[in-house]
Amino acid sequence: AVVYRRMNKIGPSTADGTAVNVVAMAFGNMGEDSATGVVFTRNPGDGARGLFGEYLVNAQGEDVVAGVRTPRPVQEMEKTMPGPYKTLLRTCQRLEKHYREPQDVEFTVERGRFYLLQTRRAKMNAAASVRTSVEMVREGMISRKRALMRLDADQLEQLLHDTIDSRAAKSAELVASGIAASPGAASGAATFDVKKAVRLGNAGKPVILVREETKPEDVPAFFASKGVLTSRGGKTSHAAVVARGMGMPCIVGCAGLKITAKGASGSARIREGEIITVDGSAGSVYRGAVPTVRPRMTADFETVLDWAKKAKKLGVRANADTPEMAERARGYGAEGIGLCRTERMFNDADRIEPFRDMIMARSAGERGRILAKLGRLQRRDFARIFSVMRGRRVTVRLLDPPLHEFLPSPGEAGSRASGALQERARELAETNPMMGHRGVRVGITYPEIYRMQVRAILEAAADCAAKGIDARPQVMVPQVGTASELARVRAMYDEARREVESERGARLSASFGTMVETVRACVTAGELAGTAEFFSFGTNDLTQAVFSFSREDAEAKFLSQYLEGGILERNPFQTIDAPGVGELVRAGARAGRKSRRMEIGVCGEHGGDPDSVEFFHSAGLDYVSASPYRIPTAIVAAAQAALR
Amino acid sequence: AVVYRRMNKIGPSTADGTAVNVVAMAFGNMGEDSATGVVFTRNPGDGARGLFGEYLVNAQGEDVVAGVRTPRPVQEMEKTMPGPYKTLLRTCQRLEKHYREPQDVEFTVERGRFYLLQTRRAKMNAAASVRTSVEMVREGMISRKRALMRLDADQLEQLLHDTIDSRAAKSAELVASGIAASPGAASGAATFDVKKAVRLGNAGKPVILVREETKPEDVPAFFASKGVLTSRGGKTSHAAVVARGMGMPCIVGCAGLKITAKGASGSARIREGEIITVDGSAGSVYRGAVPTVRPRMTADFETVLDWAKKAKKLGVRANADTPEMAERARGYGAEGIGLCRTERMFNDADRIEPFRDMIMARSAGERGRILAKLGRLQRRDFARIFSVMRGRRVTVRLLDPPLHEFLPSPGEAGSRASGALQERARELAETNPMMGHRGVRVGITYPEIYRMQVRAILEAAADCAAKGIDARPQVMVPQVGTASELARVRAMYDEARREVESERGARLSASFGTMVETVRACVTAGELAGTAEFFSFGTNDLTQAVFSFSREDAEAKFLSQYLEGGILERNPFQTIDAPGVGELVRAGARAGRKSRRMEIGVCGEHGGDPDSVEFFHSAGLDYVSASPYRIPTAIVAAAQAALR
Repeated sequence: AVVYRRMNKIGPSTADGTAVNVVAMAFGNMGEDSATGVVFTRNPGDGARGLFGEYLVNAQGEDVVAGVRTPRPVQEMEKTMPGPYKTLLRTCQRLEKHYREPQDVEFTVERGRFYLLQTRRAKMNAAASVRTSVEMVREGMISRKRALMRLDADQLEQLLHDTIDSRAAKSAELVASGIAASPGAASGAATFDVKKAVRLGNAGKPVILVREETKPEDVPAFFASKGVLTSRGGKTSHAAVVARGMGMPCIVGCAGLKITAKGASGSARIREGEIITVDGSAGSVYRGAVPTVRPRMTADFETVLDWAKKAKKLGVRANADTPEMAERARGYGAEGIGLCRTERMFNDADRIEPFRDMIMARSAGERGRILAKLGRLQRRDFARIFSVMRGRRVTVRLLDPPLHEFLPSPGEAGSRASGALQERARELAETNPMMGHRGVRVGITYPEIYRMQVRAILEAAADCAAKGIDARPQVMVPQVGTASELARVRAMYDEARREVESERGARLSASFGTMVETVRACVTAGELAGTAEFFSFGTNDLTQAVFSFSREDAEAKFLSQYLEGGILERNPFQTIDAPGVGELVRAGARAGRKSRRMEIGVCGEHGGDPDSVEFFHSAGLDYVSASPYRIPTAIVAAAQAALR
Repeated sequence: AVVYRRMNKIGPSTADGTAVNVVAMAFGNMGEDSATGVVFTRNPGDGARGLFGEYLVNAQGEDVVAGVRTPRPVQEMEKTMPGPYKTLLRTCQRLEKHYREPQDVEFTVERGRFYLLQTRRAKMNAAASVRTSVEMVREGMISRKRALMRLDADQLEQLLHDTIDSRAAKSAELVASGIAASPGAASGAATFDVKKAVRLGNAGKPVILVREETKPEDVPAFFASKGVLTSRGGKTSHAAVVARGMGMPCIVGCAGLKITAKGASGSARIREGEIITVDGSAGSVYRGAVPTVRPRMTADFETVLDWAKKAKKLGVRANADTPEMAERARGYGAEGIGLCRTERMFNDADRIEPFRDMIMARSAGERGRILAKLGRLQRRDFARIFSVMRGRRVTVRLLDPPLHEFLPSPGEAGSRASGALQERARELAETNPMMGHRGVRVGITYPEIYRMQVRAILEAAADCAAKGIDARPQVMVPQVGTASELARVRAMYDEARREVESERGARLSASFGTMVETVRACVTAGELAGTAEFFSFGTNDLTQAVFSFSREDAEAKFLSQYLEGGILERNPFQTIDAPGVGELVRAGARAGRKSRRMEIGVCGEHGGDPDSVEFFHSAGLDYVSASPYRIPTAIVAAAQAALR
């Protein structure tokens, strides 16, 4: 219960509790004219209309839920218990109409008489939620607004997740088959122990949890795993319900396997730590990592996104660093790029060498020659991204990380780095790199780097313009804390723009702005707005600075204890901390707008978190920028915020 | 001029410039009835009344200033040029009366006629400023207010600096003697090159700058050095004037030495890098590091401090971690301890072993046993400090640094650490320790540490009470960002207090409060004030968080470039950044006071910086806490802020 409450964001400070209902007992185990069952009024795996569920003759409810006996499809009741079945059908229809939501119903038939034990909103995966939203609107049962509001925006990412590559599956070794309980496919290390799964999963290792059956206390292991496989239980067993709710692949009732805490035997042997692939849509378990394919968007999904786009006020852009990511983001509905991180380009195999040479250069002249070469590469990259996003704004962030991040770390094992490289890495090493010589601090101490980047962006825009492509770059400076830093880079921008526009005889539609990711930038935003034409809140770094939490250290060292112990109700790196970080965002946006009419967005990971999106909507920002997979989530969350 | 402007805090944004006066030339080189000279109306080295200066017959002003010819004491003019001397005396008296400040006067006698070339406020060292302040009040020339306002509070630390140990000096090798141009004593590596002095000095190495003579462009090297020695020039030469203004020991006209850019020869040989000691009060140069003694406070200094204490509104407390520091701070006028860092106690030779054992303990039980032992040591330390400060508040900060700071650093050269210690150090190592697992985060994840410290503080207070000593501990929690963290520690405090008070049958006058050093604490100060009885702003960490500058990295990597390039006008770690950090301090104090009447202080190093003290006064704080040597500075700065 504690884990469920935390995962569902019911914190200790909320008044919600757990109720207990006391009712008369109905007996499903009074003989062959008695039964018990669980049905969903629509299929919770894909949203298809019609009852979906199972029943057991002469049994009590827990026999179904625990998966001890293997139940029969509920449709068989039509023949064996036609009366009660008719009552069940009628009841389900009434319940759906009343609640205007698909229901998850438990019932018992005691000596031929139908008893409704419980009904609740059916937990559905994203595909089922989307499909039922669209179909219930078509059936006239709910409005479009309600259809959007009932969606769990957070879930939608599931629809973009990979499914198994059916051709690759043919040549893969199928080791077992079971009940397809939750769709999707995933590979990972078979892990038979719940604690071990939590440990490995939290350490970032892909894990498939393999158990005889699962219990409520195993929920933390679900959150740490990529998929779940059990040898017992049916589609309504604990493992199936939980995995479906989380949108992770799950196979249950895989009776051919004998599963213990050490490994699996029977139809096949699976050793602890061995890589397996589960295909939750087909119920197939493969040995090894089977390739997967990316899903296409369904028509229902596109319908829902269209409704959401019409309803929302916030713009939704993508964090995308490459033409490929930009392409995908556009496909998911991104209205521009809110964050293009130029340093990712430097880490490519053909760039890292010249970039290192640039860092090693001991004179500005030598650095200049190498930068000219890098500038040509960046210009090509930018032009490709601007082409993909034609007509839409692309916010390009100038170099952000400290230079030592591009060098081998001192004492790196197996490093082929030269002595000079190692020495330079040691020279540049920092005690707290997070707050060190990075962002605009690098741009000011090595102005030739920013000058090169600004020119590459503007020349790429001019190259596009020459081909009739409407490129709209926004040059964005990271880590700014003072107006004088920003003015220094602005001068580079103004000069480069004058030069490029006069050389190319073109008028560029470019703009200049700043990240607002230091606390000082929030506090002095009014002054920064004198120089910046737009703001983009970088709430990742801002959260670190406001809490004095280094994200990496916090997550490894104390954050989980803080969440478990109720010191923090939510992870502030997932959901924006409204009373702390949020206050500074509001104050910064207010001060910026007071000084000029400007575009203000946010490009931290919070841009893909529904509750944070709601906050940004209420703070009056213009757009959020999220990772491509989170675009549909952001669009629906923005619509919900506007409708709410 | 640029360096001077920066050091005198005249930034590019101020309107101040450098004026040029054009006047008729008076010639001091027209024969034996002509002369030129420079006098101070009072001795700028100790403030004694009466003319202090030199003149040269048949010479022009620059001959005196450059120190090319050795001038004669001005008093000799009485015999050689009685008429002009009388005019000089009368003029100096009129000038002092008019300006109500000792003057630095340049004059020329052209064929028996006295010309006043220039007068300006005399640059004086701290001792001379203090003495002249007191004497001018006694003479009825200025008010006490003016006497306080004219002091450079920043300088006063000079009066607490060491002088040479005269007994040790007897057995030291005296290598040269010169003119005692600026009092005080210092040891350091003899450095003959100006750039090298800057480099070494900024790297933290004590340097004595040794030059034939110095020029205005050498000023940066003065700021990097502990003392200055020249072979040419008199008491009014460039080297002497600059060093006196800075309160650093200086010897000039050390004619026995032949000084080049490589080393010194002549009466003695001094090699580059060799350690020497300069005694600027006696004009003596010693080989090696001669021990120094601490000065006692003069009656004039105590008078000035008494006036200041009556005028100021801000309380002034000390940052002091040991009974010895507390004793010294009281002597300098501290009204309490604003910051007692408990971790310094753990770093003592007899504590570090059990503290490491505590970190190595793998169970809370084992940790508890070791902590009980550490608690007994801490309790004794606290009781001694409370005794020294009896009747005054002592703010004890619970453990702040991350635990790995107490372990040998991984791969530390020549470390005798066991493999287990090394492994634990690696396990605890952090990417950004500044924002890592430290302060209240450690207190919450290892509650037994804070519980031990809180008990030790309260028991020490009870021990004092039992002896009739009025102990007033304030328990202060570092790094707090959320009210729930603070509530967790408050519960430990309340429990320990109940226990100690009931066990000892005593009512303690203790209180519980929080550092406000994270941005989130400032933003949510109103909520924190629900649990904290007092606030203490930790402006060191707050400045780091507001700028996203790691202090160590910033100072080593880009801060000097930022100051030289005018990106920052002031070093925000020296003088509080009023528009950024200061805004958060104001907002935090306002919110705290809105929620309860509470004591609010500041315990960053800014507490000893005069401009910052003025800011804290205007922000309405109750006190500043400064390092013991900065206490007089803080007292005078607080008085000036109140009088202004």
